[in-house]
Amino acid sequence: MDRSRAAAAAVPPQRRADVAAALARITSPARVSTTPPDRVAYARDLWPRGLLAVRAGDVAPFPPDAIVWPESVAEVQAIVRLAVEHGVPIVPFGAGSGVCGGTLPLRGGIVVDVKRMRRLVALDAANLTATFETGILGEHLEHELGRRGYTLGHFPSSIMCSTLGGWLAARSAGQCSSRYGKIEDMVRSVEVVLGTGERLDTADAGAGADLNQLLVGSEGTLGIFTRATLAIRPAPEARRMRGFRFPRLAAGCEAIRRLMQRGLRPSVLRLYDELDSFMHRRAGKAAPVPVESPQEGSMYARMLEVIGVDQPPALRRRAIAALLDRPALLNRAVSTLLPRLGAGCLLVVGCEGERRLVEGEAAAVFRELEGAGGVDLGPGPGEHWLAHRYDVSFGLSKIFDAGAFADTMEVATTWDRLLELYRAVKRALAPHAFVMAHFSHAYPDGCSIYFTFAAAVPGGGQYDDGARAAAERRYDEIWRAGLAAAHGAGATISHHHGVGLSKAAFMPDEHGEAMRVFHALKQVCDPHGIFNPGKMGV
Amino acid sequence: MDRSRAAAAAVPPQRRADVAAALARITSPARVSTTPPDRVAYARDLWPRGLLAVRAGDVAPFPPDAIVWPESVAEVQAIVRLAVEHGVPIVPFGAGSGVCGGTLPLRGGIVVDVKRMRRLVALDAANLTATFETGILGEHLEHELGRRGYTLGHFPSSIMCSTLGGWLAARSAGQCSSRYGKIEDMVRSVEVVLGTGERLDTADAGAGADLNQLLVGSEGTLGIFTRATLAIRPAPEARRMRGFRFPRLAAGCEAIRRLMQRGLRPSVLRLYDELDSFMHRRAGKAAPVPVESPQEGSMYARMLEVIGVDQPPALRRRAIAALLDRPALLNRAVSTLLPRLGAGCLLVVGCEGERRLVEGEAAAVFRELEGAGGVDLGPGPGEHWLAHRYDVSFGLSKIFDAGAFADTMEVATTWDRLLELYRAVKRALAPHAFVMAHFSHAYPDGCSIYFTFAAAVPGGGQYDDGARAAAERRYDEIWRAGLAAAHGAGATISHHHGVGLSKAAFMPDEHGEAMRVFHALKQVCDPHGIFNPGKMGV
Repeated sequence: MDRSRAAAAAVPPQRRADVAAALARITSPARVSTTPPDRVAYARDLWPRGLLAVRAGDVAPFPPDAIVWPESVAEVQAIVRLAVEHGVPIVPFGAGSGVCGGTLPLRGGIVVDVKRMRRLVALDAANLTATFETGILGEHLEHELGRRGYTLGHFPSSIMCSTLGGWLAARSAGQCSSRYGKIEDMVRSVEVVLGTGERLDTADAGAGADLNQLLVGSEGTLGIFTRATLAIRPAPEARRMRGFRFPRLAAGCEAIRRLMQRGLRPSVLRLYDELDSFMHRRAGKAAPVPVESPQEGSMYARMLEVIGVDQPPALRRRAIAALLDRPALLNRAVSTLLPRLGAGCLLVVGCEGERRLVEGEAAAVFRELEGAGGVDLGPGPGEHWLAHRYDVSFGLSKIFDAGAFADTMEVATTWDRLLELYRAVKRALAPHAFVMAHFSHAYPDGCSIYFTFAAAVPGGGQYDDGARAAAERRYDEIWRAGLAAAHGAGATISHHHGVGLSKAAFMPDEHGEAMRVFHALKQVCDPHGIFNPGKMGV
Repeated sequence: MDRSRAAAAAVPPQRRADVAAALARITSPARVSTTPPDRVAYARDLWPRGLLAVRAGDVAPFPPDAIVWPESVAEVQAIVRLAVEHGVPIVPFGAGSGVCGGTLPLRGGIVVDVKRMRRLVALDAANLTATFETGILGEHLEHELGRRGYTLGHFPSSIMCSTLGGWLAARSAGQCSSRYGKIEDMVRSVEVVLGTGERLDTADAGAGADLNQLLVGSEGTLGIFTRATLAIRPAPEARRMRGFRFPRLAAGCEAIRRLMQRGLRPSVLRLYDELDSFMHRRAGKAAPVPVESPQEGSMYARMLEVIGVDQPPALRRRAIAALLDRPALLNRAVSTLLPRLGAGCLLVVGCEGERRLVEGEAAAVFRELEGAGGVDLGPGPGEHWLAHRYDVSFGLSKIFDAGAFADTMEVATTWDRLLELYRAVKRALAPHAFVMAHFSHAYPDGCSIYFTFAAAVPGGGQYDDGARAAAERRYDEIWRAGLAAAHGAGATISHHHGVGLSKAAFMPDEHGEAMRVFHALKQVCDPHGIFNPGKMGV
């Protein structure tokens, strides 16, 4: 990223003061900030490349000019009109857990944090829908529904630190998407403030184009979501969890495909590749113990286990750095050794819903998995996964301490291309990073793959300017190679993390001719170009 | 409709000849027609108001200048570029079974009939998808899939006379939509030629807006569909059909709501109101005998039964005309009498799929219906419905012979408003037309209502110019009243017939602010405004 770009676009101090004063009049002085700590805090999200910058002491490469916390759609409209009048950008903001740089204020401007708009507006038991303001955190949303006997069924691993608005912006998928769908399948209508300041409330209309599906996935480039009405469900009465071990990945994939194509809808369906399965085994325990999707923190914990947790910190750090410094060798060793260890691939599966219906569905699901060669491991692995499914580290990752960085890449394709996609991306990443993957979010026509990878920072984590530049080059090279391989294998470059900044350059590859339509939509919804500039390739 | 409008826009004869010659060069002389019979045949669809005009001898109020039958996307592109060059409209055409005037060539131009593009391009068993050219008739599409062991699960009553392209254009719903969804739920990607002549192939992309849902439902105003990839299913192994009688409509609605909200997915779920149920009973038979949705022909047949089929034709005709001439009285008499006859409301339900899974689902469904007060009528009514589900009259309707006309209006809303919608539309139509309804296409959050109505032509069907004008006024008044009532009750004005010409004026009511987005989309996809002018309010 060219830092001079942000600097060049910076708002002059006097204009910044004017904007802040006007924001205070629209909301209240207490709900506007231009203080350095707030501007630093809102200058980034959880994009790992941004964390590299932070490590190098560059804590706020793209600071916003002001942060504002509106409490109503009228305030949001006034803020947008103000931004238009002053020609300053707006970055819609939820909880900042994005991993693609989608909320970085590349050209400064106003971060509109909607977290004070967090009400359950209406719960409609007759229609099984709920209307929420979009600033509500996922965990709070589920709590509000849960205490009334309902669920949305949307459980991303970020549920503690992501909002409804962020889910809609990035087409979020939760851990139970095989049963409940992605957020775009749940949304019935949205209220959005466009770049003209107009409030648009998409009806759940039957006539003409479906505008919901045009706004969902727009990642703050067309407007800002203020409310959404969502399909909800009765909270499940019963749940059956189970683990299976497949000797080979292909057999596990085939079993998942069969399940989904037969119309069975397990709530959880996750297949870990051999390395990811192995990482799930705690030393000394017989049964595989899955934890939630490998984020940096948990990967670090598991690498510690692999190399022996009792070693002193400096030695640990050196061991990890040494391992990661030869990723090709490490990957090759692992793929040679693991089959000999007979670890196989772990599949975690769960069924849930009405007590009377769950038994039948679970029986059919488990029978299919056994028939496909899966070894029944009992409920243990499933129960453990359930208990630990949010055990992700969303603070600063310890793996950075070890002179390394980690990231995740979620791509998706149709079943016929799935294993080729898996091999192609692994092949592309292997020279640069230690890589593992799991298969989750399955559909009748395809499935997503969630790659986790870790790479050494050149120079062993001494984050001076030169080392930072080298680390960023390595980071960018990994992504370029990974996404090119994914695109080459016919996959989409984003299943549920979104596009943001990190994948923006790949949008034309993904959409081709359709980019013209995206550009035109941008013109229509945000004619002054104030919304989240520099993202998504529009 | 102002006939002078079409005349004013007519293409001069020399230009018409030039266009036809150019079309012949693009395709072949045998695949272009400017003959009067073809121009008459393509001047209308099954919009009942158009049939009134035909009765009055105005067989082609809006004739196209030429009809062309392309065989490839390249030909379609060349045709569109030709139309742009000559500034003549294009009307995409499938099988002409639309009932909203959506394919009327209001301003002449070229009708592009895609029925020669009807291949199964690919059947992908691994991904459970199939790619078809869009000119294939529904029945042929199902046949192609069926002989390979699959089904799309899309069974509109028009399946014999509607195409895949038409389904996509109008957001079609089939009779098994409760299980398989509407066509927009089945579509994975589309190939479309836009008004620039460009070919757009929407990827099944995960990143950004979903362009499929922007094109589906555009009714030929943005471009012409040439191919689509659809999710398919294994053909069902087993099917369980059943009928239930509910003493009251509300109890039947509530039962349907419960089923869908519990996550059960019967393939067929249709609840007829008291009059519609009564119409389904054949004289002399004990069990209710449902036939497919009341179109004009079958309604006529049923009215004949009610008044006694053995009467001579002239008497029959007079009897029907006399009944329909006092619709308010007739509706009142029916709603007073029917409850006393204890006919109740018929619900037809079916479950289908894998043998092992169907039994469990059917048991749960039937138990729920009985628990809600439904009287089990055994499999008979369901089996009969299944055997007769395409018994619609799609030729010229006999009810027009009786000096009357009939039409259908399909609206939808959320469950909490459903019965109020039913009452409001019935109340609005009752002074003008004899009206009945059934409830089908149920969802967890709502349901559609399919109204069927018949009204007398003023003057008893002597279709001179004055009588025609009076009939059209009555027709328009019925629709204005019905749609206003539907909109007032919070319903969408179209569930699956589309908007076309007949509901275009109601689009701003339905979409409000979003109309600006629709207009902008039109500008983007069809900058020269050649595609299906005068439709959908854009």
